[in-house]
Order: sequence, then structure tokens, then C-alpha cells
Amino acid sequence: MKQFIKSISILSFLLLLSTWVAAQELNSPDGNFTMDFLLLEDGTPTYQLNFKDKAIIKSSKLGFELKDDAQSLLDGFTVLESKISAFDETWKPVWGEESEIRNHYNELAITLKQNETERIMVIRFRLFNDGLGFRYEFPQQKNLVYFVIKEERTEFAMTGDHTAFWIPGDYDTQEYDYTESRLSEIRGLFEGAVTPNASQQQFSKTGVQTALMLKTDESIYINLHEAALVNYACMHLDLDDTNFVFTSWLTPDAVGDKGQMQAPRHTPWRTIIASDDATDILASRMTYNLNEPNKIEDTSWIHPVKYIGIWWEMITGSGSWAYTDEFPSVQLGKTDYSKAKPNGRHSANTQHVMDYIDFASENGMDAVLVEGWNVGWEDWFGHHKDDVFDFVTPYPDFDVAELRDYAKSKDVKLVMHHETSGAVRNYERHLDQAYTFMNDNGYDAVKSGYVGDILPKGQNHYNQWAVNHYQFAIEKAADYQIMVNAHEAVRPTGLARTWPNLIGNESARGTEYQAFGGSKPNHVTVLPFTRLIGGPMDYTPGIFEMDVSKLNPDNQSHVNSTLANQLALYVTMYSPLQMAADVIENYKRFPDAFQFIRDVPVDWQQSQYLEAEPGHYITVARQDKNSGDWFVGNVNGTTERTTTVSLGFLEKGKKYEATIYRDGENAHYNTNPQSYKIDSKRVTAKSKLKVRSAPGGGFAISIKEL
Amino acid sequence: MKQFIKSISILSFLLLLSTWVAAQELNSPDGNFTMDFLLLEDGTPTYQLNFKDKAIIKSSKLGFELKDDAQSLLDGFTVLESKISAFDETWKPVWGEESEIRNHYNELAITLKQNETERIMVIRFRLFNDGLGFRYEFPQQKNLVYFVIKEERTEFAMTGDHTAFWIPGDYDTQEYDYTESRLSEIRGLFEGAVTPNASQQQFSKTGVQTALMLKTDESIYINLHEAALVNYACMHLDLDDTNFVFTSWLTPDAVGDKGQMQAPRHTPWRTIIASDDATDILASRMTYNLNEPNKIEDTSWIHPVKYIGIWWEMITGSGSWAYTDEFPSVQLGKTDYSKAKPNGRHSANTQHVMDYIDFASENGMDAVLVEGWNVGWEDWFGHHKDDVFDFVTPYPDFDVAELRDYAKSKDVKLVMHHETSGAVRNYERHLDQAYTFMNDNGYDAVKSGYVGDILPKGQNHYNQWAVNHYQFAIEKAADYQIMVNAHEAVRPTGLARTWPNLIGNESARGTEYQAFGGSKPNHVTVLPFTRLIGGPMDYTPGIFEMDVSKLNPDNQSHVNSTLANQLALYVTMYSPLQMAADVIENYKRFPDAFQFIRDVPVDWQQSQYLEAEPGHYITVARQDKNSGDWFVGNVNGTTERTTTVSLGFLEKGKKYEATIYRDGENAHYNTNPQSYKIDSKRVTAKSKLKVRSAPGGGFAISIKEL
Repeated sequence: MKQFIKSISILSFLLLLSTWVAAQELNSPDGNFTMDFLLLEDGTPTYQLNFKDKAIIKSSKLGFELKDDAQSLLDGFTVLESKISAFDETWKPVWGEESEIRNHYNELAITLKQNETERIMVIRFRLFNDGLGFRYEFPQQKNLVYFVIKEERTEFAMTGDHTAFWIPGDYDTQEYDYTESRLSEIRGLFEGAVTPNASQQQFSKTGVQTALMLKTDESIYINLHEAALVNYACMHLDLDDTNFVFTSWLTPDAVGDKGQMQAPRHTPWRTIIASDDATDILASRMTYNLNEPNKIEDTSWIHPVKYIGIWWEMITGSGSWAYTDEFPSVQLGKTDYSKAKPNGRHSANTQHVMDYIDFASENGMDAVLVEGWNVGWEDWFGHHKDDVFDFVTPYPDFDVAELRDYAKSKDVKLVMHHETSGAVRNYERHLDQAYTFMNDNGYDAVKSGYVGDILPKGQNHYNQWAVNHYQFAIEKAADYQIMVNAHEAVRPTGLARTWPNLIGNESARGTEYQAFGGSKPNHVTVLPFTRLIGGPMDYTPGIFEMDVSKLNPDNQSHVNSTLANQLALYVTMYSPLQMAADVIENYKRFPDAFQFIRDVPVDWQQSQYLEAEPGHYITVARQDKNSGDWFVGNVNGTTERTTTVSLGFLEKGKKYEATIYRDGENAHYNTNPQSYKIDSKRVTAKSKLKVRSAPGGGFAISIKEL
Repeated sequence: MKQFIKSISILSFLLLLSTWVAAQELNSPDGNFTMDFLLLEDGTPTYQLNFKDKAIIKSSKLGFELKDDAQSLLDGFTVLESKISAFDETWKPVWGEESEIRNHYNELAITLKQNETERIMVIRFRLFNDGLGFRYEFPQQKNLVYFVIKEERTEFAMTGDHTAFWIPGDYDTQEYDYTESRLSEIRGLFEGAVTPNASQQQFSKTGVQTALMLKTDESIYINLHEAALVNYACMHLDLDDTNFVFTSWLTPDAVGDKGQMQAPRHTPWRTIIASDDATDILASRMTYNLNEPNKIEDTSWIHPVKYIGIWWEMITGSGSWAYTDEFPSVQLGKTDYSKAKPNGRHSANTQHVMDYIDFASENGMDAVLVEGWNVGWEDWFGHHKDDVFDFVTPYPDFDVAELRDYAKSKDVKLVMHHETSGAVRNYERHLDQAYTFMNDNGYDAVKSGYVGDILPKGQNHYNQWAVNHYQFAIEKAADYQIMVNAHEAVRPTGLARTWPNLIGNESARGTEYQAFGGSKPNHVTVLPFTRLIGGPMDYTPGIFEMDVSKLNPDNQSHVNSTLANQLALYVTMYSPLQMAADVIENYKRFPDAFQFIRDVPVDWQQSQYLEAEPGHYITVARQDKNSGDWFVGNVNGTTERTTTVSLGFLEKGKKYEATIYRDGENAHYNTNPQSYKIDSKRVTAKSKLKVRSAPGGGFAISIKEL
């Protein structure tokens, strides 16, 4: 009753302030959130959002600007119907941070009619205990069937000059370091935040990407993103940095159109996750909950994967994807590799892959990824080349059948690699053949890549046409019982709930950048608040040798992380797909540290975020899905910090052995990254572990029942 | 020897006029043509062409403007090598106007080096007795691998203000009536020549399409076109109407680029067919000869097709492609047709198709085309709809299995119809499935269509990306042993030699326009000089009822042709794929006239063009490939005209029965189109037949050995 009075009073207050013609309020199940829908006098729909009685989203307009249409879907609406309902259900993900997820919300569906045009638009709000999701729906109707979106005009009006963790809005890449700044500082910092990429296109000096992490001066954490991005353009946010209002900015097609729509259709969900505790942002499953349930009936073939790969050696430049240096250009089916002189640095050769299979088999790794196995790498990049790869023809030194049989004999899977070079049509033309080749040769997972500009020219990585492609590849893969890990694709929006064969994405600045000049040492304390909101990332952690020149004397890049931090990532960066990314020689040098990678599972019974502050630290404890064991990870920003981990999550009365992989005394991401200490102790649910993390450091703990 | 002296003298004359640094001459085998290659002082390559000692192409520049490149491929060249060779071979087409084709030419290959950039470009000229073909070649080299063509700068400098038979240059359609005018008049007539189309985009008020037919005041006939258009943009011609110089104008992609090139690569051939006798233009096989030999090993499944179809009734508006009028929009896989109310006008219903199968079987037709058989026609057009058809799901009233079995029992084939609506990606995604469906259900030929704008937006019908798609569909069809008849695709360039499963194209204004307001009565006297230069057209002749309102009272269109003219088209418009396009009820009304369509073959032993004048008349005699019978066709322009046909092509000493289908006394395309007379007489090789053709009329003669 108290809650009811509270919300009434808020609404009354709002009504005093606004010129409105219709209003409707919605509360979250726990009453912490209140969302108010108001229709302004001119028929403009708006919403605002309160958390614990304080506004976190001020009055924000909703609607669309249409192309070739005198009357857009911005105003002139009346409310036809307003419907409130509740939903509470628990579902079991195929893989995840926990074995069960509760989907609990109150819903408000506002049916609007634009009287002049007799067009209907529904805005559906779902208010969870962790935040708000809403989307636009266009039911089947006479006067709104086909239409083109010039721009979506969804506002997110901030209440002040918040601190943001942002990357530049870009149609083609998210591979940027995060900048922490006030909203008012974005414009001035923008250019400096844009670092080179193989394909990139910004649109505004105050344009940023989602998931965007914000923090108010009152320590309210707000995350803006979207859920269930299907057949629609990826949403960016453009900031009015005078009024601190974000407006949606969709990714355009080749002629500047932003959405090709056909009713009945709906947009993705626009999401606002918020809390006064940063760990709630990390623990939120709202993004998944706003996606459709799993559409794959038989999921027995979907499984988490811990893998090593023929990869880091090429990324650092010590090995090569290409087989030869002889060809100025390759034409598939015409270029004769049999007579080409090998360059001697081709990593994906049969013997080398066998060594990796052996290592995987000996160390409990599920699989080995091999990049550069197929012909075409001599000129794969930067040429807008359409017929760049055929995805089925190996280099002369890569024996598909032999490796298939050898991997099988060692009970190790090989992970396929499909680099498309952005040539989307070429990939789609070969997809059936490529997936069939995988079925025939024992590959059940593929890492796909979209490096460089999307073809045909004029398209980009994040528009509706491209989004539609990534989805096509995922759904077709499901037909072939293939798991997908798409790199350079659009950032995830929880679609892995619906298509759990999407076991990974890159779509952010991954470990590779540690070999391209390095990433910020606190990068991994931001990613879980941003990129990971939509789904797991194939971040490829586990680098043990931070001095890249050890592998390639010509590469002076440094991995800005301590070794202990690298171990912690297997816990802090949740993914059902985890790579041990370093070359196996480096793992052989540090077998005691590598033991953690051997031990850590990739699927979880439950997760508890113990503490978190974006840009500064994250500490999380997770319980193995298949045993009672627990694993704790801590990643730290640039300031040395000591954490006290209370083991209250352990089962009371039971005894455990904790093995702590921590930074050494003088460890430092830059000056002393390989300094680590491992110690073990007996612990119970009452224990507290005090562990110091170095700058750019962290710790990893495995806790096994005795 | 005389020839040698002649060409020397021409070259000497040229050398006096030009500032040149290198020169080379090439003669046609019969010596009628002389082509001179000259490198200007600034290293610009040029050519000129003489016919019977008179210039028909004045000094014309050759080269390319490149994108993002300081130095284009326009000048600064020196001649590295100059190589003359000869070629003479006779090959047998799988189908055609004759059973053997001679490929006889002299060749000059000029290897140019741009000294400053060290780039190599070869220009290869082939001079036949019927004209010149030349192309650019970019061999594998270090300094020219990937490059983007901003514009091809190939000139065709006319010697005067010739008469041209032209249609507006357009990136999306060739479905225009031809305009006959002086070159200097094009600009003034251009706007009037542009009639509405579902997708169209002109680029210049003096831009015209190829094949372009020209006639000089000295009655030299010149045809400009291209051969072997593969993975390159379709070439238009832009006229400098002060100097009468045409320059190539390639069709751009979404960002304005005109060619994405990777050496080794070559352009299509640019062709100039010329003669002082117009029939030589029609008899020229230069376009085929410049294409690669047949690449399909087993061609036993490729066969000419005479067919009827469920088509004209929808074109005229009396029937409908759509099954229902109930849906404002269709979403494949979601829209439930089983409960939809049929509109009662859906032509592609099982019973109606059976009637057509019966008629085909009774009248020696090979096949029945059925359009509108598959779901999606309710909103197939004009919406930039991506997922418009799936090509495998029939309407509820179209029983695939029953019709498959029924057609088989009657020894009649069904012709598949794939309308893509320009949604190229959607079509490619479904292609394997669609072709498999055809294999499974007894279809061995497909009519494909590309009505409306090409998707994704920014692409068009004739650029490199689209050309690449049509080729992909043809080659994949060959894998499935399927014959292709592509409508609204790029106009053909002789590729059917290489891929003889390409048995037809539309790519011009076909008979459908006779139901959309009518075409010019002399249209069919132009098409063989223009559109047919590149390959056969699925013109769909055989309309017997010229008053369209008889089928659909709401359609007042008139077919601008006499009935006899319609019969003649089966001979004058060569195609291995010929439709009897009218509804079968109209054929039942005129069984005596229909007898000619029953009799006329669709594959020929030899062809003799007896007389021709573009825009005015064409008379051709062809001998059946499978018998000794001959067939003669005459189409006439707008002026009444009498032809005397000498039957000297008949075998001497043999007796024949000629059946002459001619215009009636007062026949006229407009006022009295259905007036015709049929008479028979005995003839020999010595006979001459005098036959009058009405305005928009013509005659057809079948000559059978007695």
C-alpha cells in the first residue's frame, strides 16, 4: 500500500509539471522502479523513469521520423488502450553464469493511434527489478504496412552531467579503449578516443555506442543498451551535451535509410539497467529476459568450449596466416599453390596443429582453433575483394583428413575459422558448403570474422542488412548443429538465449590489441559493464608472456596486465567459450599458473558478484555447474588495492581447499607483470581472504571441496 | 599484295595527321576493315577503324580513370610489345541460328607500359570480317594488382551526325521504345524517350545504351556493343554531341565506383560491327565469337523450348498472380494462406494449369510456364521487401505433385518462375533450395525476374555487383542442369556461347508492353539490330487478339501489330525459347493461323537474312535444324511494303509446298490487325514470292519439302 501511495504521489508531481493529456504508471515488482508514460498535449509519447523515488531518466520523447512521409510517428497520438500485466517465470539457459534465470516484470502496453493518419503504434514497457525495457510494435493494419525509418527518436534524458564509460559511436567497429569522462567532456575527448581500425566510420562528436555505462554523482549506475536486435539497425546514442539528452541514432544503409519496416513488426528492446550497487548491473539478466526463449529444440550438441589455438603467434607477427609470400594476388581456383614457395612461417601446418592437439589433450582443453588453414590469406585484407575465401580449400601443408582423425583419436575438437573479410555475399554463397565441410570433418564450432569494410561498398558492419546477415549465419549454423563465435559482427543483445549456438562474439577490443600497442590496464574492469551486458565475449585471455617482442622481435607491444590478472579473466569475463590464448611454449614455462586455466570451468551453477566499480575493480565468485567447486576472480584497475573476500557463498559446515593465484609483491602491469604467487589454504564458509591486487593486476582463486 | 599496299597508304596518311610515337595496323581477313593503333606523343593509346577505305571510327582514345590514384591509366604509355596473329576455327553451338559458326579474325595485342608507374596494360584487338572487338587486359604484375575504376574512357568517335536507333542510358532498365534520330537530336528528344518503369535511373541527357545501332549518311551500318560481360559493370555510351564522340560510361555501385579490379583480369570486349549491308549486322556472330567456348561438358539436357504459359492473362489484368486480396502484407512462413479468402482470379490454379498442359500436349508445345504459383504475390512489388519469395511454397490451389505427374503423363514440361523482386540476396540464399525443388518436381527451365529496384538499396540492375549475381545464378543453374531465362537482368553479351543453359533473356521492351499502352509498331524491326546482337530474347510473341480489353475491360491497351506480324516474329526474332504468349482461347479461335506456331521450329540449321533496314523491315529465311524445311519471316515498319522473296536458298531440283501467312488486304496494326490470309503454293529454288506487308504487319512462310 505504501508503494501504491508513493507512486501516486510521484505521478501527481509529474502531472503538475507537464502539459499532458494521458498518463500511466508502472512499477517494478519490488517497487524500486517507477516508470511513467505521459502523452504530451501535442500527442507526443514520453516516458520517465525513477529509481528509489529519484528520477534517473527525465521526461524523454519516443517516436520515429519516417522517410518520404509527411507525417512521422512523432506526435499527434492519442491513447487507444493501456494494458498492465505481470509476468514471472524461471528458465534454464543451455549455458550461463547460473543454471536458472528468473524473468520477472510488470508490463504496460500503450496502444497509440495517430488520428490524422489512422496509424497504430504500440509501446510496450517491461519493468524489472533491475531496470526497464521497452520497444515499439507496429501491428498489422491498413495504413502502416511498409515504411522506411529515417531515424528512431528515442530519448534517454539524463538527470545531470554523469560520468560515462564510452567508446566512439561507429558504424563499423567497437574495437576502442573505453574513455571515462563526464558527459560534457565527450566532445572534447572524442577525436583522441578514435584509434585506427580496418573499418571505421563515426557519425557525431558526441555519438557513443551501447552498452553505455553511466554513473551519477549520487552513485546510481545506469546502463543503456538494447535487447533482441533482429532485422533492425544497431542503435547508437547521440548526446545533446547541453541538456544531457541521448537520442537513438540507428546505423544507416548505403543510401542513408535506417530501417526497412513491414508491419507486423517490432523494434528491439531499448534497455535501462540501473542500481545503486554496481554489482547489480553485472548480475542483471534483463537483456536475456527480453529475448525470445530458445528456438533450438535439441541442444545436446551445444557445449561450452575451453580451447587453445594457432592464433597468438600470428597476431604478434611471429607466424603467418599466409602460406607463401610469392603472390601479389590470389584468385581462388586459379592460383596454383602447389608450386608456390612456402614462406616458412605458416603456422597452420599439420605438425604444428598436432602439437597443439597433443597439448590440448594433455591439459584438458576441449578444442584447438586453427586460423590460416585455408587458401587466400596472401591478399585477404584491405582490397574490397569479393571472392576472398572459399572456406573449404586447405593450404598444401594442412592435411584436413589427417588432422580430423588425429584430433578424434585424442578426443580433442578442432575449431573452424571462417574469415569473411567483410565479403558478406561471398560468405553466404559458400555457407552451406562450408558448414557441410565442417560436419564432414568433425568441426562443431566456427570462429567467423568480418575484418575490413563490409561488401558491397556502402554497407557497414552494424546496419540492418548486416545484422540480418549475422542472424542468417547463426540460424543456418543451427541447422547444421554448429556453434558460432562471430568476430567483428554487431555486438550481442542477448540473442544467445534464443539461439544458444551463438556461444561467443568479439565485438569489442579484445586481447589482440595487447599485441597491437596495448589496451588500457583497466579495460577488463569496464568490459563486463558494457560489452558483456549483451552476451559473452571471446576475449581470448591467458597471455603469460607480456613482452610481445619475445615472440616477435619486431613487435614492441606490451600486454598491459599482470599474469594473475590474466588468470582472473576466466572468472570475471564470463563466456562459455574461453581461450587459453598464449602459445603453448609459454604455458609450459609456467605450469603452476597454468593449473588454474586447466581447472577453471566454462559453465556455472551460480555467480555472485562480490564487489564492483566500473573502471576500478570487479570481484566475482562462481560455482562450477558440474561440481561443488567455487572459483573467484578479481581484476583491478590502475591503483593497487586489497580485497577481502568473504567466503560466505560456500556451503556451511563443509571444508574446502582454496588455491590463490595472486600478484607478487612488486607486480605491476607494466614493470613487473609476470610476478605472481600461488598459495593454498583450508577454508570454510566463515573464512575471509585478504588479497592484494597490483595495478593492472588481480587474483584468481579455486576452491575445491575436501 | 594490293591489300598490303592499301593499308600502308592509309597508315601513312594517318601518320601525317597525328602526332604519334608508335603505330601498328591490323586488317580483317577479307581486307575490308583496317584498324590502326596509334600511341600519341603523350603516351595516350588510340585506335581508329576504316571500312572499305573510309573511316568509320575516327581517332579514339583508350584508357581508364582510376580512383584514389594520382596517375590514371590514360597516358604516359610506351609500347613494350606488339604482336599480330591470326585465328580461324569453326564451332558448333548447342542451339542457334545456324549449326556451325566460323570464328575468323586477325589479332593485334599491344602491350603498353606506363613508365612512371611501371604498370602494364595490354590492349587486344580482334578484327573480323564483320567488325572489330577489343579489350583491355591487366596481366599479373607488381604495381597494378587491386584497383578501382572511376571510369572507363574508351572512345568511339563517329565520323558525322549519324542516324541512331537508341534508348536512354539507364542503370536499371532497357524497357524503352527505340527512338530514331540524328545524334545531334538525342539531347532534345531524351526526356520524351524516358517512359516510366518499376526501376530506372538515367545519368546523362546524351547517354544511350548498347547495343546501339547507327547508320551513316553513306549508308554504313555501325553497331556498338560489348561481348563477354563478366564481373564488370555494364557499359553505356555518353555522347559528346558537338563532336559526335561516344565515351564509355560504366554503371556505378552504391558509392559511385565503377569497377573493382584485381589483376590478372580483363575487361569485356568492346565491339564495333559494321557493314554497308544491314543484313550483315544481323548475320554477324562476332559477339559470340568473342566469348569463351562452351564450359558445360554434358549439354544433353539443354534443349530449345516452345512454350505456352499462364502469363498474358495476368499481364493484361484479367487474372492475378496473387491468390487473395485480403492481406495488406505477407510475411513468408508467418502469413497463413490456408484461411485466406481466394480472390477468384488466381490464374495459377491446378485445373487451369492442367488445361494448358492439355493444350500444349495437343499442339506440340514443349512446355507450360506458370507464373504466380508461389506464395508472396500479394505484396511482391515496390516495397524494397527483402524476404519476398521463398521459391518453394505453392499457393493452396496449386498442387505441385499433381501437376508434376500430370505434365509428365502428357510429355509436357513445366517451366518454373522465380520472381526475385530485385531482392538479390534473398534469391541467392534460396537458390540451392529452389533449384533442388525444380529437380525434384520435373522443371528443367526457369524464368527469373528482377522487377523493381535491386536490393540492397544503392545497387542497381547493371553494375558489377548485379552482373556478378546474374552470372552466379546461371552457373549454379548449370550445376543443377537447369536452363535460365532471366528477365530484367543485364542485356546479354554473347555469354550463351559459354553457358548455353542461358537460353533467353528479356532485357528489352517485350510483348508485355503491348498490354501496358503499346509499343511502337516498328519496334520489332529494330530489336534484332540492338537487343538481339548479344543473344536471344524471350520476346513472347504470338498475340492473336490485339484488343486487350477483350480480356480485361479495364485495360484499353492495343497490341500494335498485325496477326501476321506476330507469326513472323517466330522467325525474325531468333530465340531457342519461344512462347506462344496469348491465352489458349485465342489460339482456339484462329486454328489456321496457329498452325504456323505449331509448325515453326526453335532451332536452325542455317539462316539467311534476305533484306533488312533497321526501323523499316527485316526478312529472314531459316532452315529447320531437324528437317529440310524452311521458314521465312518478314516484319514491316509503319509503311506498307511489298517484298519479293527469292527462294534460291531451297535445294535445287526439289519441290516444296509453301504456306504463306500474310496480312489481309486492309490489314493495319491499328485499325485492322486481325486481317490475315493463308495460301499455299508449290515452289522450287527458282520461285519468287511477292508478298505485301501492311503497316506494322509482315508475313510468315513455311516451306516443306514435298
